[in-house]
Amino acid sequence: MERILSVILILHGLLGAIAQTDMSQQVMVFPKESSDAHVLLIPQEKKPLKNLTVCLRAYTELTRAYSLFSYSTKGKDNELLLFKSKVEEYNLFIGNEKVSFRALLDFGSPVHVCASWESASGIAELWINGKPLVRKGLKKGYSLGAEPKIVLGQDQDSFGGSFDMQQSFVGEIGDIGMWDFVLSPHQINSLYRGETLNANILNWKALDYEIKGYVVIKPQVWS
Amino acid sequence: MERILSVILILHGLLGAIAQTDMSQQVMVFPKESSDAHVLLIPQEKKPLKNLTVCLRAYTELTRAYSLFSYSTKGKDNELLLFKSKVEEYNLFIGNEKVSFRALLDFGSPVHVCASWESASGIAELWINGKPLVRKGLKKGYSLGAEPKIVLGQDQDSFGGSFDMQQSFVGEIGDIGMWDFVLSPHQINSLYRGETLNANILNWKALDYEIKGYVVIKPQVWS
Amino acid sequence: MERILSVILILHGLLGAIAQTDMSQQVMVFPKESSDAHVLLIPQEKKPLKNLTVCLRAYTELTRAYSLFSYSTKGKDNELLLFKSKVEEYNLFIGNEKVSFRALLDFGSPVHVCASWESASGIAELWINGKPLVRKGLKKGYSLGAEPKIVLGQDQDSFGGSFDMQQSFVGEIGDIGMWDFVLSPHQINSLYRGETLNANILNWKALDYEIKGYVVIKPQVWS
Amino acid sequence: MERILSVILILHGLLGAIAQTDMSQQVMVFPKESSDAHVLLIPQEKKPLKNLTVCLRAYTELTRAYSLFSYSTKGKDNELLLFKSKVEEYNLFIGNEKVSFRALLDFGSPVHVCASWESASGIAELWINGKPLVRKGLKKGYSLGAEPKIVLGQDQDSFGGSFDMQQSFVGEIGDIGMWDFVLSPHQINSLYRGETLNANILNWKALDYEIKGYVVIKPQVWS
Amino acid sequence: MERILSVILILHGLLGAIAQTDMSQQVMVFPKESSDAHVLLIPQEKKPLKNLTVCLRAYTELTRAYSLFSYSTKGKDNELLLFKSKVEEYNLFIGNEKVSFRALLDFGSPVHVCASWESASGIAELWINGKPLVRKGLKKGYSLGAEPKIVLGQDQDSFGGSFDMQQSFVGEIGDIGMWDFVLSPHQINSLYRGETLNANILNWKALDYEIKGYVVIKPQVWS
Repeated sequence: MERILSVILILHGLLGAIAQTDMSQQVMVFPKESSDAHVLLIPQEKKPLKNLTVCLRAYTELTRAYSLFSYSTKGKDNELLLFKSKVEEYNLFIGNEKVSFRALLDFGSPVHVCASWESASGIAELWINGKPLVRKGLKKGYSLGAEPKIVLGQDQDSFGGSFDMQQSFVGEIGDIGMWDFVLSPHQINSLYRGETLNANILNWKALDYEIKGYVVIKPQVWS
Repeated sequence: MERILSVILILHGLLGAIAQTDMSQQVMVFPKESSDAHVLLIPQEKKPLKNLTVCLRAYTELTRAYSLFSYSTKGKDNELLLFKSKVEEYNLFIGNEKVSFRALLDFGSPVHVCASWESASGIAELWINGKPLVRKGLKKGYSLGAEPKIVLGQDQDSFGGSFDMQQSFVGEIGDIGMWDFVLSPHQINSLYRGETLNANILNWKALDYEIKGYVVIKPQVWS
Repeated sequence: MERILSVILILHGLLGAIAQTDMSQQVMVFPKESSDAHVLLIPQEKKPLKNLTVCLRAYTELTRAYSLFSYSTKGKDNELLLFKSKVEEYNLFIGNEKVSFRALLDFGSPVHVCASWESASGIAELWINGKPLVRKGLKKGYSLGAEPKIVLGQDQDSFGGSFDMQQSFVGEIGDIGMWDFVLSPHQINSLYRGETLNANILNWKALDYEIKGYVVIKPQVWS
Repeated sequence: MERILSVILILHGLLGAIAQTDMSQQVMVFPKESSDAHVLLIPQEKKPLKNLTVCLRAYTELTRAYSLFSYSTKGKDNELLLFKSKVEEYNLFIGNEKVSFRALLDFGSPVHVCASWESASGIAELWINGKPLVRKGLKKGYSLGAEPKIVLGQDQDSFGGSFDMQQSFVGEIGDIGMWDFVLSPHQINSLYRGETLNANILNWKALDYEIKGYVVIKPQVWS
Repeated sequence: MERILSVILILHGLLGAIAQTDMSQQVMVFPKESSDAHVLLIPQEKKPLKNLTVCLRAYTELTRAYSLFSYSTKGKDNELLLFKSKVEEYNLFIGNEKVSFRALLDFGSPVHVCASWESASGIAELWINGKPLVRKGLKKGYSLGAEPKIVLGQDQDSFGGSFDMQQSFVGEIGDIGMWDFVLSPHQINSLYRGETLNANILNWKALDYEIKGYVVIKPQVWS
């Protein structure tokens, strides 16, 4: 009996590995406003985090608030949240605390976003299209909890659920990466220009994800 | 008797063929607001459609809503409709359902528009001057009905009629094409730059059409 | 007696010919708002017109409505009238009927304007700085009456008179030409770039005109 | 006694000549709003004027009205006045009469201004940064009176006095020139580009002036 | 006993010297709004000042008023103060007196600022991104007091204290220099372009400073 179980576990591990997809040149299209359509991203590492960077490209027509990247842990729905709060404002949440960044954007253009945070100094950076916004500070000394649920397309108001249609994402997202360290300006600019950089938490070239509801994978046609 | 009928049918086919015009470098000018001036486009294929692309160039001063391309079937007046609803918004209807696209346009400039839809995913694309807007989704799995009436210059509110002067087109339209598949980004950009691409439903280089009311064919002077 | 009359007529003809001035590099300056200052242009042809083009350059600070070119016949004061009605709108009158054109202009810059009309189709064109606006249509099949009075600087509200100070032109006008046919896009662009093209109704290089009131001929200093 | 007087007069003439300063690369800074700080410019010629040009460069943050160049004669305080009346408007006064010019300016940039007037036609020109505004006309046939008082920094509301703080100039002025003829477009563009041109009424390279109140001579640091 | 004291004093001097840091390529990040976070800058010279220049680079999202450089002496909290009073306005205080400069800035971009003042003429200059604003004048003949307290991040409303959170700086500051003379236009442009120039009062390459509260030293990532 135990042997069979081992074989099953090994197979599962292999299948899990096989489930990773190379998403290069692809995007996830969220074609309609809803309170359920989302993508669950399964991280390669589920340990606590003292340093991190998240990057992605998004193309949307939304003018209302929406979630770009929602990372929750048990008891902390905004453990890490990248949120577009207003036309010219991004919010970054760490451990349920918030800082705001002002960004003048060309409305209706695709945008490349990188957010990083460093526990030792509390310094948070936001890079828009390869340019740094004014740095902020929060949660100095804090650690992000382990075993997160990472959701695209919806904002988690509880661990893995409680979605609000008015904060859902409608549009296209691609080139997602997550690292357990702070990327250098040079690395962020490489990513912005379209070069690839292996990521150790979420890796667009080997992504483990589950689609829930009306989300479509399509070739990226904008840049 | 049968023989005579055959001859008539053959002649009709030939005349139909002869009626096709090479409209290269020409445009249709709708010089005045009216509730009757329009052009009837006769498609080369009248079968049901699971995939499609429609492209055209338009030059207008209108700030009110207007129809750019109205394709109706018996019982579905908005089977396929490309509609400018506001200064910065296009609507695409498939099977009477609607999605909206936001486009920032230079007012008073000619515009090249391509709209495509794919039944399998429901994904709808709108390309303005060779640039893709954010994709939307609707009517996944649907088929457009056969034997349509295709009208330029007016919006059909019933099959082939019920025009509303307040949704009529005033201005110039050219380079119309319709395909029974989704064009690639490369093909759309070729069309935008002025290259030709044979179309199998409506073909600007061999167009079968009927002018109704005050519509004038003139050389294209803008680009 | 008859002989003397003949001699006078011949002399008058010669003097009329001599009265033609080469206005190249010159402009007519209308330096002040008034209800009388104007220039009477004497056409080389006074026959009815089925096709026509009028071109000119104007430089003004006016934001109110004003007349650019007023061509009246007995009983029809707006037989042919090029009128700036609003900051972004031109009106063209043919046989007292009006069409409007929307033009986005750099305020305070000189502008080159060409208006044409074709009786067979009724199509009216307006070109601003070498670019065509959206064509309109009016008075299909109509002919402009013969023996006109052509006035610059004022709008004729009756044949050769009834000027309204609020529609007078203040500023500088040059490079006037009038033809009894529709100029090609190529010809209009040549004129816009400053090349010369002989005109058979009003010819800037051999212009027959009479100054009334405070109008000054000066070298053109803008372009 | 007469001899002594002669010597004094000769000395005075020499001293007057010596008092002329080469102001090249220098500007007059009016550092504070006041009702007394000004510069008196002493013309080389004090005869009546039938033609004239005045040029200067100014750099100011003022949005209210202010005087740029105030030339008064006994009984006529606005014999010649260059006045910025509104953000987009200049006024030119000749013999107490006024014409207005509309100018779209980059706010907060230095500006080069030339104003000219010709008695024979009454035509007044205003050139801003080497570009002609729409010409106006006034005081045809008039002559400016002799023996003027020329003031920078304040507007004379009586001969040589009656200053109004609300019309004072605050900022920097340089490259002043005054001529008893109308400069050509070519000459005005040379001046705008920074070339020198001898002036026969006021000459920046040999300027006779008196500073009254808080005005400071400094090197020109903008252009 | 005296000897020991001398040794201590010498050591203190040496330690003081050692405490100087080369801040090249570094910035001071003020990550959060507060009423206490600030940096105390210790000048190399503490003598009275008759001429001075202060330069720095700042990157902030603030739209409210804030202090950029606060230099107070006993009894004069605004002995020298560079203050951003409005979106388009800077204030410079000398000996508690104020002049204003209008600057059109690209919102959300880093800015290079130099302010200078000369006692002999009272002339104050403000340079933004290498361009001079319109000069002003104040406190002609005045001397700044000796032994100042120089504070970044807060506005001193008393000697070394009385901070107001509503005038605090949030953002990043770098490339600070202070000189006891007026820099030339050439020198200011060198600094703006990123070249180094030794400064004799505050020198970014050998800076003596004390951090108070939440201020973080980080590499400069913008320019």
